[in-house]
Amino acid sequence: MHSFKELAAQFEQQFGKRQFPESPSTLYDPAQYILSLGGKRVRPVLAIMGNELFDDIHPDAFLAGNAIEVFHNFTLVHDDIMDKAPLRRGMPTVHTKYNEPTAILAGDVMLIHTYDYLNKIQSKHKQKIISVFNKAATEVCEGQQLDMDMEGMQPDQVNYADYVNMIALKTSVLLAASLQMGAIIGGGSEGNQQHIYGFGKNVGIAFQIQDDLLDAFGNPDKVGKQQGGDILINKKTFLLLKALELCTPAQRTQMDKLMSLPADDTSKVPQTLELFRDCKVDQWAEEQKQHFMKIAFAHLEDIAVMSGRKAPLRELADYLLTRQH
Amino acid sequence: MHSFKELAAQFEQQFGKRQFPESPSTLYDPAQYILSLGGKRVRPVLAIMGNELFDDIHPDAFLAGNAIEVFHNFTLVHDDIMDKAPLRRGMPTVHTKYNEPTAILAGDVMLIHTYDYLNKIQSKHKQKIISVFNKAATEVCEGQQLDMDMEGMQPDQVNYADYVNMIALKTSVLLAASLQMGAIIGGGSEGNQQHIYGFGKNVGIAFQIQDDLLDAFGNPDKVGKQQGGDILINKKTFLLLKALELCTPAQRTQMDKLMSLPADDTSKVPQTLELFRDCKVDQWAEEQKQHFMKIAFAHLEDIAVMSGRKAPLRELADYLLTRQH
Repeated sequence: MHSFKELAAQFEQQFGKRQFPESPSTLYDPAQYILSLGGKRVRPVLAIMGNELFDDIHPDAFLAGNAIEVFHNFTLVHDDIMDKAPLRRGMPTVHTKYNEPTAILAGDVMLIHTYDYLNKIQSKHKQKIISVFNKAATEVCEGQQLDMDMEGMQPDQVNYADYVNMIALKTSVLLAASLQMGAIIGGGSEGNQQHIYGFGKNVGIAFQIQDDLLDAFGNPDKVGKQQGGDILINKKTFLLLKALELCTPAQRTQMDKLMSLPADDTSKVPQTLELFRDCKVDQWAEEQKQHFMKIAFAHLEDIAVMSGRKAPLRELADYLLTRQH
Repeated sequence: MHSFKELAAQFEQQFGKRQFPESPSTLYDPAQYILSLGGKRVRPVLAIMGNELFDDIHPDAFLAGNAIEVFHNFTLVHDDIMDKAPLRRGMPTVHTKYNEPTAILAGDVMLIHTYDYLNKIQSKHKQKIISVFNKAATEVCEGQQLDMDMEGMQPDQVNYADYVNMIALKTSVLLAASLQMGAIIGGGSEGNQQHIYGFGKNVGIAFQIQDDLLDAFGNPDKVGKQQGGDILINKKTFLLLKALELCTPAQRTQMDKLMSLPADDTSKVPQTLELFRDCKVDQWAEEQKQHFMKIAFAHLEDIAVMSGRKAPLRELADYLLTRQH
């Protein structure tokens, strides 16, 4: 069994090489550029871990990992255009460094390239793997569209359950599918595949809740970004949506006043945090995180392999969900 | 054996149904919208004809056809964003009717959906079909990028051979791959697959030359669009590029003068056409078209099936390449 760190290093060793042809460079350099910005490579490593949970690592797990990581980066390129984001991992986004048409097209060719990897996976697993991947890829698009739709709504037009659904589609299903694709390669049964998928999906949701918590209540020195960035722009987070649901009419009046403040008025942050605490949404979010973690670990528990094989996944989830940054 | 028209009707019968889920409608209605604008469905019918050239039509040919037609429409959605085109088939383009982020995302989900169809093709052909499709899909992106790169160049910076290569990638390889995918499903040998691919690719190039010829010299009443539209915007066509290569220094001076005229000065068209005739590029283009047709028909000839089976493809090519509109 290997740790996340060991597998990440193995993955990077083969993924760090150029993944695209040299020519036309106007198309492929932008595609290679986004891959070169790095990242934690969580998804492809999950695919490899999903394989190793059941059996020795098969080369197909690296093919699946490459496909997933290129797909994930394709979504970043296109999302950054849609969100008009200037920076990604501290560097110019593809459409900023090059231009928008090139970023659209580089993303397209990356998405096509994804299936070059998947098509190299051995025949006996190919149909199932493409099917699991395509379901997740479709859901990621649906999640992004729902996110854009919610962007245009007032915070209390957004139902909390719809928000959880959106987050699950946009971020969690790909983590879950990565694990399942690995499990398929490792020969995991259909039942075990469902459990590893459930583990990944619920860890993903818990992770997002923690992200919202850290942005609001985290130590800014450790988080490494401005505290309350989400609050300043009235971003619909787990905390804000639940606060609007829980607050008294008087608290609601104050919340509306705070939300009407401009995004550069930093006095908004401590006042909103106080209100969040008064409504006990911090406590509620912590409980929600534990709730999703509990479901995740129950799924992991139910996977019918020796407990020792699960250790690296258990450690990874603990690490991800107790982080202070 | 069936004619193009018969197969187009069969294809449309199953493709005319909604191809996407109902929800989220903000994502899938735009995707369905572009499909509903119609089109001649040339590519999917070529896939079915490629199948029937070798054997009775298998349901997989319709799956391949659906994949190819959805892919083709995905390229239209994204190309229209890149080209800032307001209209497609006389109707608002997707990014005009909805918005740009939605058009990007609807295109993405269409591209993913393409592989849902391909993944349903029977296992024994799947790897080869996805491989042929992916090569063509990648080349279509490369062709679009080369086209955008050439857009930014002066006409005489563009080499004629590079232009033919760009056109082949952008438009012909998908026609060729459609036929080949059908041939794979029909059980055509590797050699026969190469010939049907060569037929499609060369018909495609001939078709593009004819398109340029019709835009310049066609009867505007029959063509149904403004004569010389390409000339007015100095579009790099086969005719312009070759004219710049063939013209005398004196003719070049005159051509430069004409190209500097504004796009709304319609006097530019008859004068440019006269110059084209003086340089004999009309005659040259007609010869080029015949040249590519000859290669195409030689490939068709070399396919080792009874001549009668080739009749529908021969008729289609004749029809496409003698059209006056």
